[in-house]
Amino acid sequence: MRIALAQINTTVGDLDGNVKKIIENIERARDTDADIVTFPELAICGYPPEDLLLKSGFLRDNYSALESVIQNSQNICVVVGFADAIKKDVFNAAAVIDDGHLVGIYHKAELPNYGVFDEKRYFLQGTECASLFGMNGVLFTVNICEDVWIQGSKAEQCSIDNRVDIVLNISASPFHAGKLNERRDILSSFARRTGAFVCYNNLIGGQDELVFDGGSLVFSPQGELIASGKRFEEDFLVVDINKNSKSLSEKNGGLKPIFLKPRDSHYQKPIIMSKAPELGRLDEVYKALVLGTRDYMAKNRFSKAVIGLSGGIDSSLTAVIAADALGSENVIGVTMPSQYTSNETRSDAEILAKNLNIRFLSIPIKPIFSAYTEALQEPFKEGNPGIEMENLQARIRGNILMALSNRFGWLVLTTGNKSETAVGYCTLYGDMAGGFAVIKDVPKVLVYELAEYVNQRGIIPESVVLRPPTAELRQNQKDEDSLPPYSILDPILQAYVEGDRSPDAIIAYGFNPKIVRDVVRMVDRSEYKRRQAPPGVKITPKAFGRDRRLPITNRYFPNNRLK
Amino acid sequence: MRIALAQINTTVGDLDGNVKKIIENIERARDTDADIVTFPELAICGYPPEDLLLKSGFLRDNYSALESVIQNSQNICVVVGFADAIKKDVFNAAAVIDDGHLVGIYHKAELPNYGVFDEKRYFLQGTECASLFGMNGVLFTVNICEDVWIQGSKAEQCSIDNRVDIVLNISASPFHAGKLNERRDILSSFARRTGAFVCYNNLIGGQDELVFDGGSLVFSPQGELIASGKRFEEDFLVVDINKNSKSLSEKNGGLKPIFLKPRDSHYQKPIIMSKAPELGRLDEVYKALVLGTRDYMAKNRFSKAVIGLSGGIDSSLTAVIAADALGSENVIGVTMPSQYTSNETRSDAEILAKNLNIRFLSIPIKPIFSAYTEALQEPFKEGNPGIEMENLQARIRGNILMALSNRFGWLVLTTGNKSETAVGYCTLYGDMAGGFAVIKDVPKVLVYELAEYVNQRGIIPESVVLRPPTAELRQNQKDEDSLPPYSILDPILQAYVEGDRSPDAIIAYGFNPKIVRDVVRMVDRSEYKRRQAPPGVKITPKAFGRDRRLPITNRYFPNNRLK
Repeated sequence: MRIALAQINTTVGDLDGNVKKIIENIERARDTDADIVTFPELAICGYPPEDLLLKSGFLRDNYSALESVIQNSQNICVVVGFADAIKKDVFNAAAVIDDGHLVGIYHKAELPNYGVFDEKRYFLQGTECASLFGMNGVLFTVNICEDVWIQGSKAEQCSIDNRVDIVLNISASPFHAGKLNERRDILSSFARRTGAFVCYNNLIGGQDELVFDGGSLVFSPQGELIASGKRFEEDFLVVDINKNSKSLSEKNGGLKPIFLKPRDSHYQKPIIMSKAPELGRLDEVYKALVLGTRDYMAKNRFSKAVIGLSGGIDSSLTAVIAADALGSENVIGVTMPSQYTSNETRSDAEILAKNLNIRFLSIPIKPIFSAYTEALQEPFKEGNPGIEMENLQARIRGNILMALSNRFGWLVLTTGNKSETAVGYCTLYGDMAGGFAVIKDVPKVLVYELAEYVNQRGIIPESVVLRPPTAELRQNQKDEDSLPPYSILDPILQAYVEGDRSPDAIIAYGFNPKIVRDVVRMVDRSEYKRRQAPPGVKITPKAFGRDRRLPITNRYFPNNRLK
Repeated sequence: MRIALAQINTTVGDLDGNVKKIIENIERARDTDADIVTFPELAICGYPPEDLLLKSGFLRDNYSALESVIQNSQNICVVVGFADAIKKDVFNAAAVIDDGHLVGIYHKAELPNYGVFDEKRYFLQGTECASLFGMNGVLFTVNICEDVWIQGSKAEQCSIDNRVDIVLNISASPFHAGKLNERRDILSSFARRTGAFVCYNNLIGGQDELVFDGGSLVFSPQGELIASGKRFEEDFLVVDINKNSKSLSEKNGGLKPIFLKPRDSHYQKPIIMSKAPELGRLDEVYKALVLGTRDYMAKNRFSKAVIGLSGGIDSSLTAVIAADALGSENVIGVTMPSQYTSNETRSDAEILAKNLNIRFLSIPIKPIFSAYTEALQEPFKEGNPGIEMENLQARIRGNILMALSNRFGWLVLTTGNKSETAVGYCTLYGDMAGGFAVIKDVPKVLVYELAEYVNQRGIIPESVVLRPPTAELRQNQKDEDSLPPYSILDPILQAYVEGDRSPDAIIAYGFNPKIVRDVVRMVDRSEYKRRQAPPGVKITPKAFGRDRRLPITNRYFPNNRLK
């Protein structure tokens, strides 16, 4: 049996566009003599459609879109995800289409409702195992994403009880660094436990905060990887599974399968089952950042991006990613020097722009800053100087970038990393102003590693990498005046933000107690800033945003109360 | 039997503060000779604690807080909400404490996971009906919020099967206009169906976007309202329920109750069961806005607020609400005139400030605007003028307010209403810049009604109410140049945003098709702005924020595809 896994990049809500892509891939599957072609989870409507699923019109239109796919599925079996609305009940569903007829619908039984997932907000749990199909004496089952992640799930039991030969899983599994290994372990183990081939088709593409990395996988019943799709790009993976199955009638097992039209299995064109090359740790993160940025821009119909270049490492890395995502002709770098900007950082920004071959603008902010200082002189006769004039500089820069954005239709990419987003070392409406926060989920130490990684191409000036981090908002300012060194800050943040460890637990790892408590307090107090931040690419197991939902109004300080 | 409903204002995460308030109310209940005192849902840790519930340290500390309550519960029965963690499983729980001992724990069975609720993200469903208690021959049961909202719930079945005399429900039901009537219908019907008295204790207080309005309710088995608590403030409601019950042993029904210490029912002080006065439609919305603003400020430890006063109706209403919430001595109004500001609006702002008796600052933005114009001259030789210079004025004002905020610790209150938030008729980082958006969920027509409502006190100058709405960002600008009249816009928005109706359905109501499509498009395209907006008080059935979760990247245009 020949199975094609069409690993496509869908767009949420773009029913026409998704259907067009699905039909093209059905044609390609036919040309490849495939018996079956699968598409990712909710491929018809895109994933995750969020509250679009509460609109009955959307659900209807999604069903019409499925109809178009059915009408274009002659002489092949198609497995495609859609939202199945039965009166008020909505299911995350897989349609099984055979030769132009809808022959079965499977409803996802395991609905993730943690981390970035809210599936129980939208979907009812599927309770029937209506997913058993027979073709040419081979028995296969269809299920969806989480169904294979939960040991002892209905999908697993169904596969075992009915001794199925092949499991077709359609997925939308979002990326974080290292996730592929988890997936491989889960699927290999599922294949062994069920004694079936597993064909796992994963979505690719960016959607707001999420990047789906593709990397579809096929495992043998022995748990060995047979084939794998490319990551961070569309792919069309074809496998031949020659199952010396007993005839279906000899099998025991309770459910009666739906029998599909027998196929002629003499394939015209032999295929070679491919395995995509392995990606290194920095490779995969970098590709996720590029794809996330490219898709956010394209799917929201922006072609050009503008970035404030400070001469620092964060904005430099962001610019390199943007140029790789959009082409250097579509990136504009802007330096906005103040009285505190050193000649070195200014010239580094310019060198970077030259190396990247991007357009470069210089707009000094000193006269604007003076105008504000003048206007605020009277009210500022009271009170004591704080950070207001530092923030003001960042906000002037934000305004300038937004003015360029409004005039020319360029999207502003912000440049803040995860470490500063965590502790609030950033200015709301200042450096946080923009449409997409490329490296929002990249801790500072990883920013350095990625800078080194891209510098195999020699783009970022060495002085940018070597200079101690500074916001340059006052004379001789250094990040370390306000924050612990990033080599200490980052692991504390990882334990607190991603690990939800208590301060005491983190102190027990050997960190300085005062530093730990200060960092935790800074993180907690910055929730209001993050709530107003633009989205950015999730690359860690827990990103800020839909992944981590803390109240702004929150008087809990860990471990404080009983001391 | 005498039951006290302590309708208290808790704070999320403030375990010590909540415990202190709970113990004070236990003492008060004892002084009132109450046999039982109830507290709202999750009173120990505050509601909703969101991802704090993912921290094992928080769950432990919440349990220690419960211990303190138990130790202070001599000679009375206490029903109090907390988060019950049993290894990795967490339940939304009610502790039943009798004379200093924890005698039972009930786990909420119906977990809301729609609208603003995410309870399935945190809690497991309670499966045991461990909620039956006997005292002085009276049988009562305990359950939580949603348990009484779902017809045929386990809680209902348990009450019927065991013929309970009294149902104690502890709740955290957020406000929207008209919600109280829903609650009354639900509870009255529940009382009739179960034949039991229902004592419903609802939380009061603001928490980020939500306002809990209290208004606790007690119904007789005939479905009649016996007593009710005040709304939008703390209250202590006491009822005497003289149930001529059969002795417990005569009852049929499966479960064996937990018997509590018998009480001496000769009460020292007689009580009068009170009913809180009814509130009008505008009363309740206004009180919600005041409470939401006051609690957001106080619980986040802000005492003073600053507001940009344009002389328009939105900022005027916001200032009145702020002065009522915080006291006029804690509100600062700032006028920031430009070349487009008329003398009338400027003087209206000043009159309003005088009427309100708030501090008033004037900071002209013209010189700052000129400095930007100068700085942008070179890059703006290209492109065509759009809205960039209008947005810039709004952003200069945003910067000035934030500079005042940073220097003096004043929270910036933004002044945008729901209609402009919906269609994006507002400037990101400009008039949207601030910590709390007071009237974010108030449609413009309701803004007018509320202005009239507060003007019984004669605060807002009549000319503010009569002037056609204008942003004053260019010469002779009127809102109606860009938007349909609010009397048409608001019902379209209600149908689309709150009702999730399709454009065709809205057009079928009789609205102009072009206007409907334009409005829908504006709403969809402004999602990115709303994502970066500050929180504000929810007063409608569907507010922007956690209540309405649409993707930014979204190519769906309703009803477009099949035409």
